[in-house]
Amino acid sequence: MPVIKVEMFSGRSDDKKRALAKAITDSFVEICGGKPTSVHVIFDDVAKSDWAVGGELCSDLYPDQPATAEK
Amino acid sequence: MPVIKVEMFSGRSDDKKRALAKAITDSFVEICGGKPTSVHVIFDDVAKSDWAVGGELCSDLYPDQPATAEK
Amino acid sequence: MPVIKVEMFSGRSDDKKRALAKAITDSFVEICGGKPTSVHVIFDDVAKSDWAVGGELCSDLYPDQPATAEK
Amino acid sequence: MPVIKVEMFSGRSDDKKRALAKAITDSFVEICGGKPTSVHVIFDDVAKSDWAVGGELCSDLYPDQPATAEK
Amino acid sequence: MPVIKVEMFSGRSDDKKRALAKAITDSFVEICGGKPTSVHVIFDDVAKSDWAVGGELCSDLYPDQPATAEK
Amino acid sequence: MPVIKVEMFSGRSDDKKRALAKAITDSFVEICGGKPTSVHVIFDDVAKSDWAVGGELCSDLYPDQPATAEK
Repeated sequence: MPVIKVEMFSGRSDDKKRALAKAITDSFVEICGGKPTSVHVIFDDVAKSDWAVGGELCSDLYPDQPATAEK
Repeated sequence: MPVIKVEMFSGRSDDKKRALAKAITDSFVEICGGKPTSVHVIFDDVAKSDWAVGGELCSDLYPDQPATAEK
Repeated sequence: MPVIKVEMFSGRSDDKKRALAKAITDSFVEICGGKPTSVHVIFDDVAKSDWAVGGELCSDLYPDQPATAEK
Repeated sequence: MPVIKVEMFSGRSDDKKRALAKAITDSFVEICGGKPTSVHVIFDDVAKSDWAVGGELCSDLYPDQPATAEK
Repeated sequence: MPVIKVEMFSGRSDDKKRALAKAITDSFVEICGGKPTSVHVIFDDVAKSDWAVGGELCSDLYPDQPATAEK
Repeated sequence: MPVIKVEMFSGRSDDKKRALAKAITDSFVEICGGKPTSVHVIFDDVAKSDWAVGGELCSDLYPDQPATAEK
């Protein structure tokens, strides 16, 4: 039954999402019980220009380098 | 006042969203009362690669056929 | 797959939620396809004092009468 | 700690989001306390065709003029 | 049309919510346009034991003092 | 930056939430990078009577036994 929504900066690959979905699902089942197939993980990619911290857009705080600095 | 958020696989047409918004709004007003104009329905299209069930991405579980198999 | 979140004023009975969940699920399946058992409807009861419109709390705009005026 | 999610019609510029993030953050800190750097504001741009009011899509209710009429 | 959801630690008074709803609504209208009555602000009070940062529950990180230390 | 919202049936203890928050945070940092302290995990306990699957409330589908059957 759990629905787990992950809001994060856009740019992560499907492989990273695959690995993260698997890890979150396994952790949930191990800790809280239930069947893996009842665990939904939904990724919401948010552009840095749509996420502000301390009143500043993250696109200003952490501008993307040519090759993305942050994994 | 209700805000009804529909998270579903992307790919449904505006016509389907039109019909679904109307049906959900009518049901809400009929069952819970209130005015239709106070009912907000917001659609959030989610790519299959952003939705995991059982630790697997739905793009892997239900790959899109050339003509989308799933309505 | 759809997850449909209904944010509404608190106070509706389980019977109303039962009827609304059924109506929303049937509409989704009829219009968008898929199986009923893949449709999740989650109700989020919000106190009027936690919902503001036009900068005013709904508990001030629509104070509850002794017997709740609004269905 | 607060996470403030702003769901609004798409089309607002980064400058507007910058100004709104700053204003919301300042108001939160002034009224509720805490540090600005603990305030997260996340913008979710919603297409008018994904937002229905009164059972009608806003793209039908408020079609975009050639130069968007609504700020 | 905007729906602005504020997730914050529980414990703030209705007066604080009144003031914050007014400030957020005024800022939105001033910066992004639209009518105040179309702005919805929804507060979601989250217990510190339901909010984790750095893998630790905030109820452990910031235990409530007899008179709540954090405004 | 990530905000990870976990919507699940109510009834899990703080210890389970502690363990799940730690596991999710560690997985995120290991797979996607970033600092643990930038990872927010928010738990949203949902009553079975507020969660419907297949048009039926989970309180009807999975009534709680005297000692909760489901971990």
